[in-house]
Amino acid sequence: MNLGRDEIGQRSETVRRANLSAIVRALHEGGPLSRSELVARTGLTRSAIRDLIGELASAGLAVEEGPVRLGTPGRPSPLVRIEPEGGVALALEIAVDSLAVALVGLGGTVFERVRVDRPRGHSAVDDVVADLVGLVADVRARRPAIDPVMGIGVAVVGVVRRADGLVSMAPNLGWRDAPLGERLAAALGMGIPISVANEADLGVLAEHRRGEAVGVDDVLYLSGEVGVGGGLIVDGLPLTGAAGYGGEVGHVPFDPDGAPCRCGSTGCWETLVGEGALLRLAGHPSASGRAAVDAVLAEAAGGSPQALAALAHVGRWLGIGLAGLVNVLDPRLVILGGLFGRIHPFVRDSLEGELDRRALAAPRALVRVVPARLGADAPLLGAAELALEPLLADPAARVGLRDALAELVSA
Amino acid sequence: MNLGRDEIGQRSETVRRANLSAIVRALHEGGPLSRSELVARTGLTRSAIRDLIGELASAGLAVEEGPVRLGTPGRPSPLVRIEPEGGVALALEIAVDSLAVALVGLGGTVFERVRVDRPRGHSAVDDVVADLVGLVADVRARRPAIDPVMGIGVAVVGVVRRADGLVSMAPNLGWRDAPLGERLAAALGMGIPISVANEADLGVLAEHRRGEAVGVDDVLYLSGEVGVGGGLIVDGLPLTGAAGYGGEVGHVPFDPDGAPCRCGSTGCWETLVGEGALLRLAGHPSASGRAAVDAVLAEAAGGSPQALAALAHVGRWLGIGLAGLVNVLDPRLVILGGLFGRIHPFVRDSLEGELDRRALAAPRALVRVVPARLGADAPLLGAAELALEPLLADPAARVGLRDALAELVSA
Repeated sequence: MNLGRDEIGQRSETVRRANLSAIVRALHEGGPLSRSELVARTGLTRSAIRDLIGELASAGLAVEEGPVRLGTPGRPSPLVRIEPEGGVALALEIAVDSLAVALVGLGGTVFERVRVDRPRGHSAVDDVVADLVGLVADVRARRPAIDPVMGIGVAVVGVVRRADGLVSMAPNLGWRDAPLGERLAAALGMGIPISVANEADLGVLAEHRRGEAVGVDDVLYLSGEVGVGGGLIVDGLPLTGAAGYGGEVGHVPFDPDGAPCRCGSTGCWETLVGEGALLRLAGHPSASGRAAVDAVLAEAAGGSPQALAALAHVGRWLGIGLAGLVNVLDPRLVILGGLFGRIHPFVRDSLEGELDRRALAAPRALVRVVPARLGADAPLLGAAELALEPLLADPAARVGLRDALAELVSA
Repeated sequence: MNLGRDEIGQRSETVRRANLSAIVRALHEGGPLSRSELVARTGLTRSAIRDLIGELASAGLAVEEGPVRLGTPGRPSPLVRIEPEGGVALALEIAVDSLAVALVGLGGTVFERVRVDRPRGHSAVDDVVADLVGLVADVRARRPAIDPVMGIGVAVVGVVRRADGLVSMAPNLGWRDAPLGERLAAALGMGIPISVANEADLGVLAEHRRGEAVGVDDVLYLSGEVGVGGGLIVDGLPLTGAAGYGGEVGHVPFDPDGAPCRCGSTGCWETLVGEGALLRLAGHPSASGRAAVDAVLAEAAGGSPQALAALAHVGRWLGIGLAGLVNVLDPRLVILGGLFGRIHPFVRDSLEGELDRRALAAPRALVRVVPARLGADAPLLGAAELALEPLLADPAARVGLRDALAELVSA
């Protein structure tokens, strides 16, 4: 076996980069950890972790604090913390009723966040982009010291091609094949990478990193307001599909001969369980938005038969659709976001009843259905995670590893 | 940076094991390759590949043949081939109408294969196990020189818990919570690992490794006879779900108020597109099996309005369900196996029409629907792949890498 020193060097660099990434991810997702906890989470040796922490500290990505007594017997252990300012992303969100921008650092630290109402209905791409550019300037002006920003993540209520941020379809905005990524890049002019993704795909990412689904590897996140979207985590990784279009659970035809859907088909799930169906059945046919839904919930709490029947109907169809998705995906957790998180107490029984009836016994026994923990900000926080991903995947690009390794090889 | 020699050794061993795995996988899946092709496929250096091939050759896993002219200009390149006898698995299949056993080597070489009819209907687990044990003895007796067998893979028409091969539900066999893995292990008494999985999950694995889906990372395989099953490849990897129950697309309620399903629910996809629906609509209500389906296809080819209407109905519902699954999964390829592969020419138009109407434009544009290439043996071949997986994942366990590396470290 002839393994030359150069080759050892190259291989070791590959391994070392992976190890740095493992540590940064552990701290980013798990919060401050002792060296022992890092050993347990990464499988690396104590001495390797000591060296790697030293490198991360000198690159400004992590800091080790003096020994802290953890409440357990034995020697106090120093805690390693991520440095939030070591990597900062801009997170943008285009929701049905609002626009939001946040400045988010490693570890999920939100430095600044602003959310403004947007009127429902169609908007020109360039108008939305102009509004977002204004919000970005506002947010950055509040924190001039935070610079540079390393990437931009964008959550949008639409079907998105990941490669370039083309929004193939966004009925709430009236967009078809809208080049959102391209327009934002030009208008922001920051010269840093922009990643655009569907809001439910980012919602599940955030819930998986720091919400209800931490440590759960098979998750279905259901997001709903006017439209109904889904975000999937499969075996610990986001399911995006061939081009990022996956997760459009709102357009599964659970009642194929039913009502027309905005997508052009009929009987899609969103015609059965979306905000429009709930309000129509509850007798609020001309209303829309959060206030109208709150009114229905108040009526239901007051015992209104029509409101209760409307919620039971939505709950039944939620359960029917979820049963089908549970049979296909065998998730351990279903997270109800947006509208569905708010109505959960009222639909729980009918939903669980349909799951019992229609999901196969084996996957049924494993799955829990819970409301989202991060609430309305989940997609925005997920957008930050998306933008931070390159740094998490290869912090060595920042650490200047090659130099250090060159030293080793020539030593 | 203090990276000790022992640590370099440990890390290099990790990398080297991964590299051996990459080469064995490339040869197993891609057939004989030149060193240049291996460089292109694995990203390793020529010198690393030379050394690794040497190790694989001395372990009996690969062989390098004399330079062969490939029809391209330049120096003839030696071809590296996998050694089929370097790793041999037993593949078993419990299908609706048959039992099968094969002895399969690395590279997918089928040394022996036997398939026998089994009467439809319920069978005791122990009877099926006894039949399989007989077939295994038969197949092994034909090739006494092939020994040892390194693992056993089992495909079964049922919902399977991967961890231990418990068959949670198999309506075609009449099984509920049948401990198939355990019973087979005891009855075969071979003392080697047994992995059990759903037949559609293994069908898609085989089509992905050496069938219609080679090189395609997002695939939905639809398998149907009496029941309807699905196998999913997501981002290049099998989707099994939290416990291996995923892919049960036959039990998505696309017509929730429809006919009762064997699973206890109503209006499941398999009540709409399975063999039973086709035969009933075609006026063969008491018939079943491949011959009855062939009769319907012959009538349709002869212009029978009832047979054509039955096929159009099945095609329409196939398209409705596939549209929903395309919206959720964004696959690049849908492969029709079993019954659906055979009826594909007759249902293509109605199926594609519903996809056009109901799948969102963006994922619709990316997906192709094709019949399976490997035919009825796909699940059996997938079972062999499952059993060979530990060797593919870590051929170093066979190569005796640790010894070689110990030499390097002490050199």
